[in-house]
Amino acid sequence: MPTFREKLSAAAKKNESLVCVGLDPDPALMPIEDVAEFNAAIVEATADLVCCYKPNIAFYEALGISGLEALRRTLECIPQDIPVICDAKRGDIGSTAKAYATALFEWWGFDAATVNPYLGRDSVEPFLEYADRGILVLCHTSGPGSVDFQDLTVERDGVQRPLFEEVALRTRSWNERGNAGLVLGATFPQQMETARQLCPDMVILAPGIGAQGGDLESTVRSGVDAQGGGLIVNSSRGVIYASRGRDDFADAARRAADELRRAINAARE
Amino acid sequence: MPTFREKLSAAAKKNESLVCVGLDPDPALMPIEDVAEFNAAIVEATADLVCCYKPNIAFYEALGISGLEALRRTLECIPQDIPVICDAKRGDIGSTAKAYATALFEWWGFDAATVNPYLGRDSVEPFLEYADRGILVLCHTSGPGSVDFQDLTVERDGVQRPLFEEVALRTRSWNERGNAGLVLGATFPQQMETARQLCPDMVILAPGIGAQGGDLESTVRSGVDAQGGGLIVNSSRGVIYASRGRDDFADAARRAADELRRAINAARE
Repeated sequence: MPTFREKLSAAAKKNESLVCVGLDPDPALMPIEDVAEFNAAIVEATADLVCCYKPNIAFYEALGISGLEALRRTLECIPQDIPVICDAKRGDIGSTAKAYATALFEWWGFDAATVNPYLGRDSVEPFLEYADRGILVLCHTSGPGSVDFQDLTVERDGVQRPLFEEVALRTRSWNERGNAGLVLGATFPQQMETARQLCPDMVILAPGIGAQGGDLESTVRSGVDAQGGGLIVNSSRGVIYASRGRDDFADAARRAADELRRAINAARE
Repeated sequence: MPTFREKLSAAAKKNESLVCVGLDPDPALMPIEDVAEFNAAIVEATADLVCCYKPNIAFYEALGISGLEALRRTLECIPQDIPVICDAKRGDIGSTAKAYATALFEWWGFDAATVNPYLGRDSVEPFLEYADRGILVLCHTSGPGSVDFQDLTVERDGVQRPLFEEVALRTRSWNERGNAGLVLGATFPQQMETARQLCPDMVILAPGIGAQGGDLESTVRSGVDAQGGGLIVNSSRGVIYASRGRDDFADAARRAADELRRAINAARE
């Protein structure tokens, strides 16, 4: 079985794409009612244009158990060679983190998951133990509240740096199996650049393009690794709700994903 | 409808108890197989001895959708006047945090939930908007990794303090509806004392007694408010797995919960 990293690289190469489509169903925005059907149409329209998919599990949980059933059906229609990141931002003490890792990696079978570092190493380690999965640690997030704590200057061993840099450095030190990565919001390109310098080889997941206002060019320039890859640019609303028409939403999603793919590739050159 | 705070105070008064029983089903430890049946027996044996229950949703998610069905059946057998805290430690950007709040407070109908502050105000605000629910913000957690970031000295406006204190202060400033509280692990009584001084009126949820080694007396002394309340002392494994015998686990849970209740009440005096 290939690792998340291998699967991601292969899909990125095959589809010439760093695009991740965020599968975030919102009943107020969806042109059709059935979540699994909506997602299946989006996946069918975009599977040759992406390097991965990223359902944010919050949107399924908001629909209750039937929402989670729809997520299960969605996973069944994603081609085997496209990795799926569960955006779950879990974080709990060791014994409980183990239960979350079991849920996401064993019961659901996701290739990767986002995790929250606030509870420290024992909250991240049970995820990292799955050497073939990707563990994307929240470093500097895309929302306005990210500055409340993540940008505060912290001191350790006499050195001062912003908290998100400390998170990047700790994640690097925990990354014994090479399966850790970072989440850096596209709305903060300076922080992304700094984190990329601290962690030159890690995968970076960059949400915040589109609806949230992140700048694509600076995200790509500051986020890619030395080989021009190692970056996942997520768009959710900008792709899946590109049109809210029942008859053309899938085509519009395809066009939006392809436009994003081309714009990223232009910025990589 | 009473608020979480009112419901909690009424149950604490009626049962003369600050005990919260953590309903964390672990197939490796449970004396019987059926999760809902196990929880129902624990609830029946302890409902007159607690001020609230706290399922950690990770343990249900680890069992997949059938685990969540068992959680639903569990909630049905908890008496209406005992509040239920969902230990979910959610945290995401505003629009997604709204989806999590919808899931926990509307779909599930929990009285309170734990949330992770790392993403800042917009990740907590959608929960706080539910004025009748309790929002318990992770401040200083009980696991060993809590020191990795939560104890780092941060600087804001020229003042230096540990990050967990900054979280306590921000939570206080966000608490416009009086429904915010803090999570402070019983394994760090000094940090609990400091947080209680900064936030004299907030509810404090204290996990970490028992299996995790937190000291009860110092937790109670440092955690209660000026009226000797405002504290929720959680025990999960120490109560629900007090015996692993099929025939006596419920009785043993009752004894363990009552012992804890009495020990807390002795320390309050």
